[in-house]
Amino acid sequence: MENLKASEAQRVIFATVGRLGVETVGLEASLGRVLAEDILANRDLPPFDVSAMDGFALRAADSIGAPVTLAVTEDINAGDLPQRAVNSGQCARIMTGAPMPPGADGVIKVEDTDEPVPGSVELKVAIAVGNFVRPRGESMHLGDRVLDAGTTITPGVVGVLATVKATRFAVYRRPRVAILSTGDELEGLNDPVDPNKIPDSNTYALMAQLQALGIEPVILGIARDDQVELESYLQRGLQFDVLLVSGGSSAGVRDYVRSSIEKLGVDIKFWRVATRPGHPLAFGVTDTTVFFGLPGYPVSSMVCMEQFVIPALRRMMGEQHPYRRTLNARLASAFATNPGRTEFVRVQLTQQNGEFVARPTGSQSSVVLLSMAKADGFMVVPAACPGLAAGDQVTVQLFDSAAWQDHMGFEE
Amino acid sequence: MENLKASEAQRVIFATVGRLGVETVGLEASLGRVLAEDILANRDLPPFDVSAMDGFALRAADSIGAPVTLAVTEDINAGDLPQRAVNSGQCARIMTGAPMPPGADGVIKVEDTDEPVPGSVELKVAIAVGNFVRPRGESMHLGDRVLDAGTTITPGVVGVLATVKATRFAVYRRPRVAILSTGDELEGLNDPVDPNKIPDSNTYALMAQLQALGIEPVILGIARDDQVELESYLQRGLQFDVLLVSGGSSAGVRDYVRSSIEKLGVDIKFWRVATRPGHPLAFGVTDTTVFFGLPGYPVSSMVCMEQFVIPALRRMMGEQHPYRRTLNARLASAFATNPGRTEFVRVQLTQQNGEFVARPTGSQSSVVLLSMAKADGFMVVPAACPGLAAGDQVTVQLFDSAAWQDHMGFEE
Repeated sequence: MENLKASEAQRVIFATVGRLGVETVGLEASLGRVLAEDILANRDLPPFDVSAMDGFALRAADSIGAPVTLAVTEDINAGDLPQRAVNSGQCARIMTGAPMPPGADGVIKVEDTDEPVPGSVELKVAIAVGNFVRPRGESMHLGDRVLDAGTTITPGVVGVLATVKATRFAVYRRPRVAILSTGDELEGLNDPVDPNKIPDSNTYALMAQLQALGIEPVILGIARDDQVELESYLQRGLQFDVLLVSGGSSAGVRDYVRSSIEKLGVDIKFWRVATRPGHPLAFGVTDTTVFFGLPGYPVSSMVCMEQFVIPALRRMMGEQHPYRRTLNARLASAFATNPGRTEFVRVQLTQQNGEFVARPTGSQSSVVLLSMAKADGFMVVPAACPGLAAGDQVTVQLFDSAAWQDHMGFEE
Repeated sequence: MENLKASEAQRVIFATVGRLGVETVGLEASLGRVLAEDILANRDLPPFDVSAMDGFALRAADSIGAPVTLAVTEDINAGDLPQRAVNSGQCARIMTGAPMPPGADGVIKVEDTDEPVPGSVELKVAIAVGNFVRPRGESMHLGDRVLDAGTTITPGVVGVLATVKATRFAVYRRPRVAILSTGDELEGLNDPVDPNKIPDSNTYALMAQLQALGIEPVILGIARDDQVELESYLQRGLQFDVLLVSGGSSAGVRDYVRSSIEKLGVDIKFWRVATRPGHPLAFGVTDTTVFFGLPGYPVSSMVCMEQFVIPALRRMMGEQHPYRRTLNARLASAFATNPGRTEFVRVQLTQQNGEFVARPTGSQSSVVLLSMAKADGFMVVPAACPGLAAGDQVTVQLFDSAAWQDHMGFEE
């Protein structure tokens, strides 16, 4: 299959790539993972009726006809157990979160009382039964399923896990990923500068894209344009769950990669996608490894990673939401399109009159990584789009790491 | 100062909290950090004029009147150096990224040629001077400032750093943060279940919020409602860059924290903010430590962390964009407000007809952390808002970790 649309390529990938296995992690190391088991409540919470305010626990009927004065039986702090029942004409001083004493059925907040003499309190208003009482089990009941398998562990989820004291639990495994660059023209990061070579940036941009997913990849290095050397690298890479090979931008290397990877048992599903940048994207599998052949141009490599590899990796890790969030924006200035392939244009986003405004970040050349570094997301131009005018509504796919802004962004 | 608006509280915080110092990191460990130095290009890139396509390098003048046939002098691959000049009537087979041979001033792509006999090539079309040639220095020139100090290191920035072979560089230091919970009613994560206690979830939710910023906090534990014990914990906490104390929800503990923290030399700038949840938020400083007193209720604690602590931490780490991204959405159903304080309502976002739709996630009680776990962001309700109807436009502040969706979200 050649020149697949992005969605077709994703369909082929998702039909092939499934969730990895399960492992156990501790709560402290669980952020960003996906639960592989349901999590149940281990008790009622709150464990008893508690006060929702600092004030006085009483029988609500006693407050009818306020102002009235009640005798204070005891002080109950959060963490205390009440020592006495509250009878008619009595109340207990109670702190937020403290258990209600027997007999009391409501709480009056301290601001609605006066204490003219020690040991007694004057209620300035009447209260209803249940006032400022949080009933036992309001947050959760013993045995409730509080989190479903498949839930992504965000800070809020960590809070819930701590609440039910889930200290260790099952999550989907993260893939082990290897990165290989190819090409005689490439210079390694730690090699001295050779004016005739091109620095290998892809390895590190891909590394960082993986790190942003919580995956620490293994960097295999640079395979030269030599079939024996390349095959030895590929063999090592096929021991991982995922092998990313970037480059092979020259026809010679491309042929080496293709013939070598098929010789090593990879079932190639497609070699090209109809996107710009990102034309030469290969995808294949063995029984144990998923292979992606990424373009050699720096921006193309990062775009293919975003559009195809990251959704696949997220699926492998059990994520239910593989795609980046998209939003609508107005285009700041006219943009000449090049119909025929879905185009991913690097843009910066600002806000104006409650709308997002998308502005392309300079040169869209596939080699100009600077424009990628400056972008907040990709403006996605449909393949059939004949051209875009200033003010046109466009779809922008956000990058996660740029989801911050310099203004608070809301009215108080 | 009491009951500050969120923006006033942030102004006080930002007037007090500055960038931390600088440290050196390696490229592999730099994702998410902020550059503390400008980064310059270490060479011209590309280092020479190169071909942008697989094809033939020639004198463009020779293509006039195509079809014409030229003799092939040599094959130039990426990483090779040309061995011969191209004279009139000649061309060199050239691969993408390979250096242009002397004499050639344009490239014709292989698809626009035929090779009827070995050693010669027929051009099917004429080309212009510069066709498919990427001039030396197109991406960057030696000495260009390619990245400014203050740039957040995203995957694209890692790619640029690798391109200029910046293997180690200066970034702003991350704060060392300690977390302390307080209250007799709290049960530690590893304690056995006591039906009379409340599990301490705040420590772990805050931990995860910090981990999401790349900060691995130190967990001090739970201080009981005892002034001596509390002061010993606070003293330890004041050895960190930032001390977060959660709880003290009962009046007794609140008083202990306040008197102890001031006794230990913390200059308290404010004790309350006019937000809901999050009323009792304290902020103060010593010469070396920033102190935040967070509410004890789980959701209130996370909201204050999002609105006040995280922007401060990001500022300390050198970030220029301290705030979460906001966007406009339509409210799915009427929402009764409680005017007087800015309210942060947990919502899920969906998309409908190109607009975001915000739907509150069940109970907005400050103790119901589940609704936080399910949310994509906060709907921010202005303090003066008398109420919201279905379809009203509202501002939603996104959480980062939820910036994913289950559909591709764009048209091809």
